[in-house]
This record gives sequence, C-alpha cells and structure tokens, in this order.
Amino acid sequence: MKLLITGGGGFLGVRLARTLLQRGHLAGQTIDALVLIDIAPPPADLLADGRVQARIGPLLAQLDALREDAFDSVFHLALAVSGECEADFELGMRSNLDSTRALLDALRASAKVARVVFSSSVAVFGPDPDVPMPSRVADDTLPAPQTSYGMQKLICEHLISDYTRKGFIDGRAARLMTVTVRPGRPNGAVSSFFSSIIREPLAGMEAICPVDASVSHPVSSPARTVDGLIAVFEASREAIGGRMALNLPALNVTVAQMLAALKLVAGSAALDRVRFVRDERIAGIVANWPMGASSARAARLRLAPEAEFANIIRQYIADCTGLPNADQTLKGLSK
Amino acid sequence: MKLLITGGGGFLGVRLARTLLQRGHLAGQTIDALVLIDIAPPPADLLADGRVQARIGPLLAQLDALREDAFDSVFHLALAVSGECEADFELGMRSNLDSTRALLDALRASAKVARVVFSSSVAVFGPDPDVPMPSRVADDTLPAPQTSYGMQKLICEHLISDYTRKGFIDGRAARLMTVTVRPGRPNGAVSSFFSSIIREPLAGMEAICPVDASVSHPVSSPARTVDGLIAVFEASREAIGGRMALNLPALNVTVAQMLAALKLVAGSAALDRVRFVRDERIAGIVANWPMGASSARAARLRLAPEAEFANIIRQYIADCTGLPNADQTLKGLSK
Repeated sequence: MKLLITGGGGFLGVRLARTLLQRGHLAGQTIDALVLIDIAPPPADLLADGRVQARIGPLLAQLDALREDAFDSVFHLALAVSGECEADFELGMRSNLDSTRALLDALRASAKVARVVFSSSVAVFGPDPDVPMPSRVADDTLPAPQTSYGMQKLICEHLISDYTRKGFIDGRAARLMTVTVRPGRPNGAVSSFFSSIIREPLAGMEAICPVDASVSHPVSSPARTVDGLIAVFEASREAIGGRMALNLPALNVTVAQMLAALKLVAGSAALDRVRFVRDERIAGIVANWPMGASSARAARLRLAPEAEFANIIRQYIADCTGLPNADQTLKGLSK
Repeated sequence: MKLLITGGGGFLGVRLARTLLQRGHLAGQTIDALVLIDIAPPPADLLADGRVQARIGPLLAQLDALREDAFDSVFHLALAVSGECEADFELGMRSNLDSTRALLDALRASAKVARVVFSSSVAVFGPDPDVPMPSRVADDTLPAPQTSYGMQKLICEHLISDYTRKGFIDGRAARLMTVTVRPGRPNGAVSSFFSSIIREPLAGMEAICPVDASVSHPVSSPARTVDGLIAVFEASREAIGGRMALNLPALNVTVAQMLAALKLVAGSAALDRVRFVRDERIAGIVANWPMGASSARAARLRLAPEAEFANIIRQYIADCTGLPNADQTLKGLSK
C-alpha cells in the first residue's frame, strides 16, 4: 500500500505516521511506502524509516506529482489553523479550501480510487439565531459555522461526500475534537490555550487562561484522535453509515475540571501557575463553539472518549518521559 | 440604486427584472440602473428600458467590470441546472461554485457592501443512511445533498453566510422550490418534467411523465418565487433570523394532484396527453429529493405558498394569454 499523509510534518501527522509505521499495515494491507507532505520536514526518526518519503512545501505546489503517484490511501490533515484563518481570510481559503479541492482533483485524476480520511473539526458547529446549538453537538446537528475555518472545513466535508458519491474517491470525513494536551509551543489556533494551561504548568511555567473556568469544551487526547482517524479509515462504508462527516469521540470537560485534574496529577504548585486573564477576542470565539459533543456513529466503530481528563494529562506526561528534553518539559511536575 | 441580476436573461431573471422595473424601487430605494448578466440576451422589452444594461457572456469573464461597478444590490440567479451538473462535474463546479465565489470576491473588492440574494435550491436536501429525510424538509433540516448540483448550492450557501459574517457583503440565501409551470422548452434540469406535464398538454402536445403519479414534490409558481426573492432581499437581518439559508414557500403536491388540477383547468383531453414512461435515471434522482418542504422563516416574512395547484396552472395560462404565440402555447386548452 502506498499511503499519503498531508500535514505529515505536523503534530498529529507525525503521531499518525509513527503509529502506522509501527503497525506496518492498514486495512489489512502492508504499508510499503509512506509519503509525508508538509511545509515543515518530519522528525529524524521518520526520515530514517526506509518506507518514508518527505516532500517539503505547500500542498498546492505538489499536485502534479500526486496525479502520477496513484496513492491507495490518504490522510488529509494539512490545514491552516482557526486563528490564522480568521485573521487572514485568503490564507484560509487557499490553505483549507483550494488545497483540499486540488488534492481531490489530483486523486480523481490518478489511476486508483484512493481511500481518503479528511480531518474536519468540531468548529463546523456554531450557534445561529435560527439554529440554537444543543449542549452536545451530535453527528446530525445542523452545522452553522461561526468562523471562516469552520466554514472551510464544512465545505470540504461536502466536497469529500460528493467526490465519494461520484466514485472519484472513497472518502470519509471525521470531525476532530480539540486535541489536547499538544506538546511544544502555542500555535495560532484559538483553542491553543486548552493545551497551554496544562503543558506550561507541567514545565514549571506560567500559563494564561483567556476564558472563564466555567467554559465547557469537547476534547480528545492525541492518541485517541489518531486511533479515531485509523478506525474511520479501516471501517467499511456500511459500518460508518452514510457519507456525511461523523464526530470523533469527545471528553466534554470544563476548564475548572481540566485544572482540577492538573492539581490531582501534578499538585497545587502546578495549578498555581495558571492565571485567568480574559481575552475578549478568544473568549468571543470560544463562546460560539460547542460546549460538548456526542459521537454515536464513532461509538458504532467501537471508538470511545477518555474516561477522565486526568488520564489525558498522564498520557502527555508518559509521552514526554524519555524524550531528550523531558527534564525541561516536565520540570514543574512535583509528584 | 444600482442593481445586478446574474442569470438575468433566464426565465426567473427576466421575470424578476420585469417585476422590479415595474415597481421602480427596491428596499425603499429607486432603481436607477439594472445590469443583467447572462450567456443569453434578455428579451426586447427589457433591452428597451433605459435603466437596463445587458452584458452577454459567462459570469466568470465579467468580474473585472464587477469590481469597478460598486453595485448596491445583487440577485445571483445564474446557474447550471441539475441534470447538466450530474452529467458534467466540471461544468457544475465552474458554473455554480467557482462563479459564485468569484462574484463574491468581486463584490468584496468593490467600494460598497452589496446586499446579495442567492438562489439556492431545495436540492440541497437528500436522504443519507445516517440522515433520514423528514417528509417535509424544514429550514433547519440537515442538508445531505445527493447531487453535485445540490452540493454546489449548499457550499455557496455557506460561502454567502461567511462572507456576510465577515462584513464583505450583506448576503441572504433562499432555497427555491421547483418552479413550475415554466414556459418554453424542457431544459436540462431533472425537474423539468414537472413543467412539461402541464405545459405540453396545454399546448395540445403529448408529454411524458418519467416518474410515478405518487411522487410528491414541493413546487412554487414563478410569481410566488419572484415575490419570495424580493421579500428576502427587502427583509431586515433580524426579520430573516440568522445567516443560514431559508426555504421559500412550497406547495407540496403529488404528480397525481398536479394532473387532477390539469383536468380541472383544461379538461380530460389535456390530461389524456400525459403518458407515463418511467425513466430510471430521472426517477432515481427524484427519489432522493424531498417529498415536501416547510418554510417557517419565510412565513415570518409573510410569504405563503399557493393554496392549490390549479391556481398555478391558471397563472401560467394568464401569463401566456396575450403573448404573440399564445394561440400555440394554449391551443390544447379546451375550456
């Protein structure tokens, strides 16, 4: 099997690539070749794998090669994040909409009908005066995006669905919950603080929470998110049920519950490093996001959310332990 | 006020243009200039009006001028019809999606924030294994398009919504029901037969009905459809309620009811000219269309469907009477 991951140099893409290479197979087929496309190169361990080929640069600049390649399988994770897309409308349209359509057209022009998993987002949902949002958005909740990012993701869902109906690809769209705890530095995603308020205190650093502690949000760990993407890929069309996008499992937590878990896992000193400094821009966007999500169709694929947020923090700590910079990443951990 | 109608040479565009020119004003402003863009020229009566300027050719070729024009108001009706879009995927993507996006970008680049009414379609709805369609689709029914045409219309709805949220335009999307009775010849729309089975018998010609008499469908007369477009244009944002598309009023009728009305209005001889010859391609597409629609938001704008289908037939006859070719168009009318 010849596999492509767009956004393959990003956090989720790298984790997905490592998981797949370790498994060695996908949907019953051996992974012979794995192409990673991203504007940033993947880490050394991936480059050292004989099956991996990295292609560095914007997706839109690499489409001629994609038409020739005849991939069996694609995970399309590449994206510009929500904050960027709200600040720079053209960037979002180009990176999230034009790139996806061009990728789909390249796959359509290739010799094989590729199976494609598209990473959509819970950001497709939003309240509208005529479309009140339920406390937990479901697979079949009417999306009313309140950000350009959410609009672009939703449009891509419908492209994926119609290209699949036409037989150009075998596509599936899975809506990712907010992935947390993400390692590294804050990024331009509005949701970035959901990771910062855990990650920075664990590293002994102060973190700013820009929203109230009562804010509730659907989150998922990196590991469960990758599991979800793989399960959606491997599922039969019948098991997925329909061509419409499905929600990946969510743990619905408040900021207060996240911080209580931080205290439980890392102690009061860690908790004390979080300061609440309201950011009206961020709080305004988050106020239009779902407070929670349900995922009946993912449950039919035997996918489940984490039982509690402390498990997500423990997973982050376990992921960091043994890394070269673990002493810095976890120096705020008092127990 | 400087007004643009795309698709201004088409059936609905011409009717809308005539109605607006007769009124002379829109949303409290005098209509000083009306530009009609279409691949076909508008009829002579419109060309003879000093306020009218016709621009012939594809919308995509006329965008530079649109950026300069600074329109106050736009009705965006131009489209490739459903049958064409299903047969020629690229045509539909170019005519329905690329053209709309390019129009929105041209309006955004102009000096004014134009009010834009986009003609979407009840074809955005369709059944999906995981999204069973209600017997009457509502404003907030989850769209699951089952044609490329429906997908393109739905994507445009979301573009309109986000361009409006960003303040680039003041956009509104109204989902048209199947407009019937359309004059002239059958076109490439799959729904074309809903007009043919009335229009051809009235002209003394045989008509083929490609679906069962039990098929139910939401329809609207040309006059009510134009009234709906104007009302959606003139409504305040608050009166419309939200940025999402709304359904225009529908008369939900079966083919059997349509033909009973034909007999009532035009006699048994007219009815006898309709033959049922099932077309599996058309019947298959229609089976995925809504059987009916409701329109709560349009009702709040005081828009209502026709009381009965016989009224729609009588309206068609009245429209034809007095036209140069009325004796041909209505020669099958026995009473």
